[in-house]
Amino acid sequence: MFKKILIANRGEIAVRIARACRELGIQSVAVYSDADRQALHVRYADEAYYLGPSPARESYLCADKILAIARKCGADAIHPGYGFLAERADFAQACQDAGIVFIGPKPSAIAAMGDKAVARATVAAAGVPVVPGTEGEGNLSDEELLAIAPQIGFPLLIKATAGGGGKGMREVHSLEEMPDLLKSARREAEAAFGDGNIYLEKLIPGARHIEFQILADQFGNIVHLGERECSIQRRHQKLVEESPSPLLAENPDLRAQMGKVAVRAAQAVGYVNAGTIEFLVDQNRNFYFLEMNTRLQVEHPVTEMVTGIDLVKEQILIAMGRPLRFSQEDIQIHGAAIECRINAEDPAHNFIPMIGQIRHLFTPAGPGVRLDSGIYAGYEITPYYDPLIAKLITWGESRVEAIQRMRRALEELRIVGVQTNIPFHLALLNNPRFIAGQCDTSFVDNHLLTLQNNDEKTAALLAAITAALVTHRQRPQTVAPSYHSARPISAWKWVGRWEYALR
Amino acid sequence: MFKKILIANRGEIAVRIARACRELGIQSVAVYSDADRQALHVRYADEAYYLGPSPARESYLCADKILAIARKCGADAIHPGYGFLAERADFAQACQDAGIVFIGPKPSAIAAMGDKAVARATVAAAGVPVVPGTEGEGNLSDEELLAIAPQIGFPLLIKATAGGGGKGMREVHSLEEMPDLLKSARREAEAAFGDGNIYLEKLIPGARHIEFQILADQFGNIVHLGERECSIQRRHQKLVEESPSPLLAENPDLRAQMGKVAVRAAQAVGYVNAGTIEFLVDQNRNFYFLEMNTRLQVEHPVTEMVTGIDLVKEQILIAMGRPLRFSQEDIQIHGAAIECRINAEDPAHNFIPMIGQIRHLFTPAGPGVRLDSGIYAGYEITPYYDPLIAKLITWGESRVEAIQRMRRALEELRIVGVQTNIPFHLALLNNPRFIAGQCDTSFVDNHLLTLQNNDEKTAALLAAITAALVTHRQRPQTVAPSYHSARPISAWKWVGRWEYALR
Repeated sequence: MFKKILIANRGEIAVRIARACRELGIQSVAVYSDADRQALHVRYADEAYYLGPSPARESYLCADKILAIARKCGADAIHPGYGFLAERADFAQACQDAGIVFIGPKPSAIAAMGDKAVARATVAAAGVPVVPGTEGEGNLSDEELLAIAPQIGFPLLIKATAGGGGKGMREVHSLEEMPDLLKSARREAEAAFGDGNIYLEKLIPGARHIEFQILADQFGNIVHLGERECSIQRRHQKLVEESPSPLLAENPDLRAQMGKVAVRAAQAVGYVNAGTIEFLVDQNRNFYFLEMNTRLQVEHPVTEMVTGIDLVKEQILIAMGRPLRFSQEDIQIHGAAIECRINAEDPAHNFIPMIGQIRHLFTPAGPGVRLDSGIYAGYEITPYYDPLIAKLITWGESRVEAIQRMRRALEELRIVGVQTNIPFHLALLNNPRFIAGQCDTSFVDNHLLTLQNNDEKTAALLAAITAALVTHRQRPQTVAPSYHSARPISAWKWVGRWEYALR
Repeated sequence: MFKKILIANRGEIAVRIARACRELGIQSVAVYSDADRQALHVRYADEAYYLGPSPARESYLCADKILAIARKCGADAIHPGYGFLAERADFAQACQDAGIVFIGPKPSAIAAMGDKAVARATVAAAGVPVVPGTEGEGNLSDEELLAIAPQIGFPLLIKATAGGGGKGMREVHSLEEMPDLLKSARREAEAAFGDGNIYLEKLIPGARHIEFQILADQFGNIVHLGERECSIQRRHQKLVEESPSPLLAENPDLRAQMGKVAVRAAQAVGYVNAGTIEFLVDQNRNFYFLEMNTRLQVEHPVTEMVTGIDLVKEQILIAMGRPLRFSQEDIQIHGAAIECRINAEDPAHNFIPMIGQIRHLFTPAGPGVRLDSGIYAGYEITPYYDPLIAKLITWGESRVEAIQRMRRALEELRIVGVQTNIPFHLALLNNPRFIAGQCDTSFVDNHLLTLQNNDEKTAALLAAITAALVTHRQRPQTVAPSYHSARPISAWKWVGRWEYALR
């Protein structure tokens, strides 16, 4: 049994991992940058060590500093969370060399799947269908990519080989705009992953993003925990995820087939620990391997809520050398779960990231509500990291109930002091197409938010969003009959009332 | 479909009901006393009306005022919650007469079960085993009860015929102490329920309190939703509840038998809506009907978490005339759930109720954690009502995981400004007998807390509780190695840090 785990991450996911440690009776060690001295993960862990200046390159991406801390504080293992060092094979190797367990797959599997272009070639060889694109024969120059692009056809996607989370990704609609996009994609990939290599992939119109959660132990046992639908994206960044997928709920055969292929893809690289096989499903229900994320996903809670399995604990148990506690037949899906990513950003102004102090906070609770958060009242949001500050997850007996709960929970959630994308989520959850489960990855751009275009449709959408904002801030005051000397109190005006309560 | 429901209650249960209304798209109406002008349920509901002065007799127990408000605001139905008017047949009848649906059983069923003595006779006639005691032949005087007592034998219990929640209950160990206890029990029952009638029941040593959740529709369909074990009590007030019961988890045949008897007991009074059949199980696994609570229970969330069924929504649907959506075979129990009642009281000083303003609040979250609460930062706890301010519920794949999560969640929960019983819960959850599931209704008094007795055992227990208090307030500071110019931060000292953040 591990005695101490260092969490090489920050924010909500670091808190999530520390919670799992605490439940398992394992000591947790946090690391932090200047900007995170007061962060929740630092307060929550049993120990915390300073890493360096706020920019991630000087703190959370410093493998050597983190390893040195792990050695000195006597950590048995390192959990990398997602992002930062989570998919760096060299870091996993360095942990292994230092005699510290890396809670994740073997370095070879990270390398095989981490280079997205190589990964495509590897799984294709194992008989897994892949999205047409540049195949992984080393890294290609801009000139080579420009030459291949017309063969793939437009529209296409530029993607970072070290990618994930939409970073370094660009949609290309013509050869003319491609050189500039190649440059900016490389720049963004370099900044995000320390690796500027990119590849091309055909853009499949009307595709849905559906991914399968994998768990594999060190003894060759491997299962999938069903799927997550993540088609609600904006600029290739997931915003809302759910399990099960509305599409696969109606197509159990397709689910079974995709699950089998997902397991096969993971087996192709001798995968161990938790991982995710991402697929695109086109309008004819053909599915294509997109990439494998060799780590915990942001959206893992929806799988936890429908399976009852704690993925972080399973990761730790697998890393300790325990065999899987269940077979594929043991895994059952109960009800439906949805996650809304709460970002500090202004949905009415092109989702620009927002910073500042959270002055008051009321968090939703009650039946079927889970909040994984990195914030508290008084917490200061800085510009250095991802705008994701919390994840709100609801469970329901049915998808409809999960949606009703999510609306209710979003209305309860009050973050005062910093603008968030809560109004976006409320607008989405009231959209009839979303409620009907008819979403592809272009849904947000096509049906929900095109605020930058100043046309009629946009004006209508803008009005709807403004209405949502107003509704969220202040529910309509009810003019109701009086009783005795009573006046009705208009409910749920948190903002004003908080200030009153604390003044 | 109901358009508007008046919630004739306060605190966490009023918020709980308002949440269900919001998810169903039904308008909610709150009522409030002077003390509750700033209460969470008032802020949460869509409308709120003033009832009267703070004492419940002048506000929440005023059936006529509540009915007048319901009529004037156009409520279709009234949800009574638990306590107050929830088990008053005359109120249910008055609602019916006013053409407003009472969300609960028929007045006749409330009356039949509400007089606990009559209830025992009724179910006994239907073949349900009951605890030996005075049978329901009208209400008996003190003199009559004193005459019957020796026949039942000591120890015995005085209980309120209108009872519930341990109010008006007294343990009697000899005939000599009985006259005084009869008087104080009647006084307490009169104050709590407006009914001073009492009856006697044999006290079964080493008994466990196990109850079954019932749902019945208006068409004769009736199911049980498994059991809750509520043996962790202090002075007959439940403190911790769980589902499934550790005893029945090992005895599925006993569970099946008790479930059938529970359904039979409910059928004996033509029961409709949600209700609970309480049993005592003695050391030889004989079970006896104790009473039926003809309303939602405080501890209903543990059943919701293992069945996935929202009991408040089911109550509303049944009251609207919908048939049950499931049969007995459809109901499955998944994992285990525990609830800790968070009371504003000082466990180190004989659980004296505490009042005051909650200055800072951090609520637990993350996987498997549910909080049903009536408080917020800035909220003022007054002396007028029950000290229950929140219910913390955790779910786990197994009972062990639920306990581990509860410990973790209790450590996260920070209520600054008012003393609570959190240290009691932490001590309980670390008690080996509790962890082993070996608890009867005298467990708390015998094994955990006898602070009033100044003997050696008590001193040891006091030390353990003090240790728990200290642990809760301040985790041991880790002396850890430095890195660069880094000092380790000792984590989880919320109290000091909150004040820093907000100063």
